[in-house]
Amino acid sequence: MFKAAINAELLKDAIAALAVIVDEVRFKIKPEGISVKAVDPANVAMGIFELGSSAFDEYSADECEIGLDLNKITDLLGIADRNDTVRMGLEEGSNKLLIDVGGLSYTLSLLDPSTIRAEPRVPQLELPAKVVLNGADLRRAVKAAEKISDHMLMGVSGDTFYMEAKGDTDQVRLEMGRDQLIDLKAGEACSLFSLDYLTDIVKPTNKVNEVTLSLGRDFPILIDFEIANGAGRISYLLAPRIESD
Amino acid sequence: MFKAAINAELLKDAIAALAVIVDEVRFKIKPEGISVKAVDPANVAMGIFELGSSAFDEYSADECEIGLDLNKITDLLGIADRNDTVRMGLEEGSNKLLIDVGGLSYTLSLLDPSTIRAEPRVPQLELPAKVVLNGADLRRAVKAAEKISDHMLMGVSGDTFYMEAKGDTDQVRLEMGRDQLIDLKAGEACSLFSLDYLTDIVKPTNKVNEVTLSLGRDFPILIDFEIANGAGRISYLLAPRIESD
Amino acid sequence: MFKAAINAELLKDAIAALAVIVDEVRFKIKPEGISVKAVDPANVAMGIFELGSSAFDEYSADECEIGLDLNKITDLLGIADRNDTVRMGLEEGSNKLLIDVGGLSYTLSLLDPSTIRAEPRVPQLELPAKVVLNGADLRRAVKAAEKISDHMLMGVSGDTFYMEAKGDTDQVRLEMGRDQLIDLKAGEACSLFSLDYLTDIVKPTNKVNEVTLSLGRDFPILIDFEIANGAGRISYLLAPRIESD
Repeated sequence: MFKAAINAELLKDAIAALAVIVDEVRFKIKPEGISVKAVDPANVAMGIFELGSSAFDEYSADECEIGLDLNKITDLLGIADRNDTVRMGLEEGSNKLLIDVGGLSYTLSLLDPSTIRAEPRVPQLELPAKVVLNGADLRRAVKAAEKISDHMLMGVSGDTFYMEAKGDTDQVRLEMGRDQLIDLKAGEACSLFSLDYLTDIVKPTNKVNEVTLSLGRDFPILIDFEIANGAGRISYLLAPRIESD
Repeated sequence: MFKAAINAELLKDAIAALAVIVDEVRFKIKPEGISVKAVDPANVAMGIFELGSSAFDEYSADECEIGLDLNKITDLLGIADRNDTVRMGLEEGSNKLLIDVGGLSYTLSLLDPSTIRAEPRVPQLELPAKVVLNGADLRRAVKAAEKISDHMLMGVSGDTFYMEAKGDTDQVRLEMGRDQLIDLKAGEACSLFSLDYLTDIVKPTNKVNEVTLSLGRDFPILIDFEIANGAGRISYLLAPRIESD
Repeated sequence: MFKAAINAELLKDAIAALAVIVDEVRFKIKPEGISVKAVDPANVAMGIFELGSSAFDEYSADECEIGLDLNKITDLLGIADRNDTVRMGLEEGSNKLLIDVGGLSYTLSLLDPSTIRAEPRVPQLELPAKVVLNGADLRRAVKAAEKISDHMLMGVSGDTFYMEAKGDTDQVRLEMGRDQLIDLKAGEACSLFSLDYLTDIVKPTNKVNEVTLSLGRDFPILIDFEIANGAGRISYLLAPRIESD
C-alpha cells in the first residue's frame, strides 16, 4: 500500500533531478519515504535520491518496490500547475499507480521492477577536499566551459576552488576563493570530468542555494544537495576522465 | 462595397478560430455582418462562424462574397499590436482587399470564391445532452488525453460529464459533477473523438469563459462559444469515431 | 597593449550590430577607441563601426590591430548578465585576448588579421534625401515587407517617406509624413533593396530612438545610428538592387 499527496512543482523538480541519470527507475517505497539508486547506462554517473515522508502533504506506505517510467511521469506532470497537489495511490499487489492532478485521474501501468537494472552498490570513497557553493555559480561555470571544450577540470589548490576548460585554442577558468565560497575544506584534488554528464547533472542545481562538491585526485566527484526544502536529498557520483595531455 | 474597422486582437482571435478548420474560406459579407461555413478537407469537422456588425468599430457593407487565404491574413496580422485598429476596404467589383494596420497599407489579392469549396449544409441534429464549462478546463483535459492516446471519449453519465482516454497501458479520466460545471442538461451521451481534431478545435476556447458542448450517443459533438465579446459566435461540429474494442 | 572594461549588455549590442555583416573582423584599436570597417562576403553591405573610449568604464590602449571571431565572443558573452562588467586585456605581442566576466577568465586565441579581408574603402556618396525615424518603425515596415516579397522599395516623394513591397499578387506600403518622422530632408530618392540584407541590418535598430537613412535614386542607402548611449556609432551601407519590371 502506498498513498501520498505532494506539491506538483516539488515532485516535478525531484523527478527532473533523477531523470538526468536514467529513464526507468526502481522506486523503493518505505514508511519513512522514497529512495532510488540508479546508474546511467554507460556506468559513468550514479544518482542517489531520497525523498522523506515529510516532503509530502500526506504519506502512508508499506514497504514495496515499483518500476516507473520517468518520461511518462514528467509528461503527465506537465499538465499540472505549480501549486497543484498531486495525489498518488497504489493498491496492494496492483501494478497500476493512480495519480490525480487537479481533477484529472491517471491510471498508470507500472514497470516490472525486475526488468529494470538493479540498485548499484555505492562505493565508499575517501574524498579529501570539499567545496560548498551556490548552484547557480556551478552551473554558470559549466555553461562557460561547454563553449570551449568537452571536458572540465575541477580541483582545489590551496584555498582556491577552480574549474577550467581548455579547447584547441581557447581556455576558460573560474577561480573561487574561500570568501566567494560558502565553505571549503582544503585537500589535494584535481580531476577531469565529461561536460556531457556535468551539463545534465548541474541542471537541477540551478535553484539550489548550497551544493556540496567532494573531490579528490583523479577520483569521482560527489555532487550533493537538498531537495524539497530539506526533506530530501540527491547525490550524484560522476566518474573522472583520464586527462590526455 | 465593404468597409470596416475592428480591433486587431479580436480579428486575430476570430481568424484563428476559423483557421483550425480550413486554409481558404468564402466570407459571406452582408449588411448585418460576416459569416462563414466551412468543412475540413477530410469532412470530419465543420466550422460555423458569425461575426456581427457590432463586433466592428465601423461597418458598412453590401451583400457580397469574397475568397480569403487565412494564412495570409494571419501573417499580416502578426505585425499588428493587440490594440491596433485594422481597417479593411473593398471596392465594387474589385478583387483586392485593402487592409490598413498602424500606418501599413496592404493590398491583398482575393481568391476567386468559385475555386473554394462551397458552403456545406449544416445537419440538423438532436443532441440530448448539453454541458457548459470553462474553456480552460476543456483544453486541459484534451492536453492530458493527448499524452495517452489518439482518441478521447466524451460523455454524460447521470449528473456527471466525463472525458476519458485509454492508451495501451495507461488511462486518464476527468469527471466534472454538476457543481464543477456551469450548466448540465443530463441525457444519454457517449462518443469517441479524434484528438487530432479536438486539439485544434479547443485551442481557441482557452480564453473562453463558457463553452457549450452538445452530445449524443455515437453522435457528432457540437462545440459552441461566443467570440468578440458576444458580437460573434463560432460552432464546431466534429464527427465521432467508431470505438474499436 | 590594450586594457578595457565595459558593460556586458553594451558590448553584446555592439558586437551584435557588427555580426550582421561579417563573422570575422579586424578591430582597429587606438588610444581614442575601437573601429571596424567590414564588407559582407557578397560585397552588398558594408558596416562602419566606431566605439569611443568613453563607452568604456576603463580604457587604455596603444595602437594595434587584432583579428576577432565574432561568433566566439557572442557565445562567451551569452554567459554574462546584462549588468556584468566585461574586462579585456591584451599583452604586447601576444595573440591571446584575456576576457574576464563575472569571475570567469577566458583566454581567447586571436585570429591573424592578415587572414581577414582588408578594410574596405568607404565610397563618397552624395545622397540627396535624409530621413530620421524611430528604429522600431523601420523594423516593423521591414517585417511587413518580408511577408510579401524579397525586395523593398524605399524612397522620398515630396514630404513623404515611403517603403513599399510588391509580391506576385499582394502589396504593402508604409507612408510616413513629415510629422510622423523625426526629421526629413526632401530630395529625389527611390531605390530597391534586398530584404535578406535589410532584415539583418535593421535588427539592431529596434531599440534605437533615432535612425538616420540617407537615400538617393538607385543609390546605396546609408543607415546610421548611435550605439553605447552616444559613445559609439554604426553605419551600414547597403547597395541597391536593380528593379526588374
